[in-house]
Amino acid sequence: MGRQTFELLVLGCASASPTSERYTSSQLLNICERYFLIDCGEGAQIQLRRYKARFQSIDNIFISHLHGDHFFGLPGLLSSMHLLGRQPGLTIHCPAPLKDIMDVMNKVSETRLSFPVTWNFTDNTGFNKLFEDDKVEVWSFPLSHRIACTGFLFREKPLQRKINKEALKRYRISFADIHLLKNGHDVTNEDGILIRNKEVTIDPAPSRSFAYCSDTIYNRNILEYIRGVDLLYHETTFLQDQAQRAAATFHTTAAQAAELARDAGAKQLLMGHYSARYTRLQDFLDEATPVFENCLLATDGKKITI
Amino acid sequence: MGRQTFELLVLGCASASPTSERYTSSQLLNICERYFLIDCGEGAQIQLRRYKARFQSIDNIFISHLHGDHFFGLPGLLSSMHLLGRQPGLTIHCPAPLKDIMDVMNKVSETRLSFPVTWNFTDNTGFNKLFEDDKVEVWSFPLSHRIACTGFLFREKPLQRKINKEALKRYRISFADIHLLKNGHDVTNEDGILIRNKEVTIDPAPSRSFAYCSDTIYNRNILEYIRGVDLLYHETTFLQDQAQRAAATFHTTAAQAAELARDAGAKQLLMGHYSARYTRLQDFLDEATPVFENCLLATDGKKITI
Repeated sequence: MGRQTFELLVLGCASASPTSERYTSSQLLNICERYFLIDCGEGAQIQLRRYKARFQSIDNIFISHLHGDHFFGLPGLLSSMHLLGRQPGLTIHCPAPLKDIMDVMNKVSETRLSFPVTWNFTDNTGFNKLFEDDKVEVWSFPLSHRIACTGFLFREKPLQRKINKEALKRYRISFADIHLLKNGHDVTNEDGILIRNKEVTIDPAPSRSFAYCSDTIYNRNILEYIRGVDLLYHETTFLQDQAQRAAATFHTTAAQAAELARDAGAKQLLMGHYSARYTRLQDFLDEATPVFENCLLATDGKKITI
Repeated sequence: MGRQTFELLVLGCASASPTSERYTSSQLLNICERYFLIDCGEGAQIQLRRYKARFQSIDNIFISHLHGDHFFGLPGLLSSMHLLGRQPGLTIHCPAPLKDIMDVMNKVSETRLSFPVTWNFTDNTGFNKLFEDDKVEVWSFPLSHRIACTGFLFREKPLQRKINKEALKRYRISFADIHLLKNGHDVTNEDGILIRNKEVTIDPAPSRSFAYCSDTIYNRNILEYIRGVDLLYHETTFLQDQAQRAAATFHTTAAQAAELARDAGAKQLLMGHYSARYTRLQDFLDEATPVFENCLLATDGKKITI
């Protein structure tokens, strides 16, 4: 059996304003058929349609901060979910004032959504669990931007240990004990024999993780939250030629993001949130890869499987 | 010399939600280099870029009503104007609560726009002048929708009469008198001769007009406002197969819009705001043209010159 899905789809990779090539920030993450929408720039619903994503499957939306290029697509997406008759609840993890915006919009348009929305307000201090089920956890952590902003860490829960069927043949074993073995315990069987876990199980595939960091100044304090992630999305609004401007506007350069990926022990770095001044994205790779080898460019429609 | 510009660009023609083919309602009207944006559905700024419209030239925005498919693109457009450093003022003609929405959005994103916005709140009773300069007037008139909604009438001011140079050769004439003749007056020249206007001038081209009607139930009360327009945009959300649904949701069918165009003596009818259920737009033409011959289909990117 293959591994369960862990797939990221980039819906927009521009900072500030859309360009003719790039919509503003939004990504769709599918972990084991849980669909997480991360930021929702203007036109996110159009991109979801373009890339054939079934947007009614999204049950959780995460908004990093309240600059327009990260949430101006939310009213339209919720409206379309409503017009299509959505019934299941939706949870929106976001800074609290976003609810005020949506409330006033729904009031003036006399709209009462066809589905319940649960608001889970983020706190940009500390490492906070936002979501958990049997397969996945999502955490927020503080980024350092001009207004309150959080990063998000998505990770699979540790998988069960795998039974080495050959090794287990030597013992009489109950169904309940197999469950205990899968969860890492030693067991004593009905013959009174101690069966050591490591003798009859093997390590599962390591659980996978994705961290999303947009927008933020270069900030080494995030290393503790993103250590060892399989994929790190970190904004690279600028190249080093604009390092001063990056710092002044609380953004990051490609070289700086590569340093963070390297020092966090990330497996891959995904760059994006490019300033409209840059038309040649290869320059981001050229700047980042000498620092950290496994760099990828976000482009609208790009899919990354972990 | 050719006539001055009077050109409409359709930016979006879908109702409710964008589809893969159609953005939501927005049109850009250029009359004598005055740029009027009419409604501003999600992604209007993306469409303006796609069709190479210089959106910083827009000085007046008209929002018919506060259903999201008619204004969800406004926050992003204003934000982009701001990020590009716009200085000239912008006037937004709209229902009053839109200002509340924009205020709360700017507050949470800590944005202070780089340019002044003048809010001109529309009133959906009566025929009210919203804009006037030396070339153009814009009026609002009531539509009948589920929430307050206005139509807009754009018309050139009457053009000056043209001087018949051959006829005028017979007289001595001052510069000031030519100005009076162009404005329709008779004059007496320095030789004491009465020069009759109709003897030395010819009629100018008739002034042109465009009326925009979205969203509304079929309503013959609008005829008085749109009589004789060169181009009538009237929503055709449905075909006659959904006439009941059209009435129940305060929308109009293609046949009904054609009746209004015919009875108003409009020169052309532009249809749009199509329900997503319809994929074959030819059906709108097939239904409307037996009633009124000069029908056009709005499609994204379509340009109409009057």
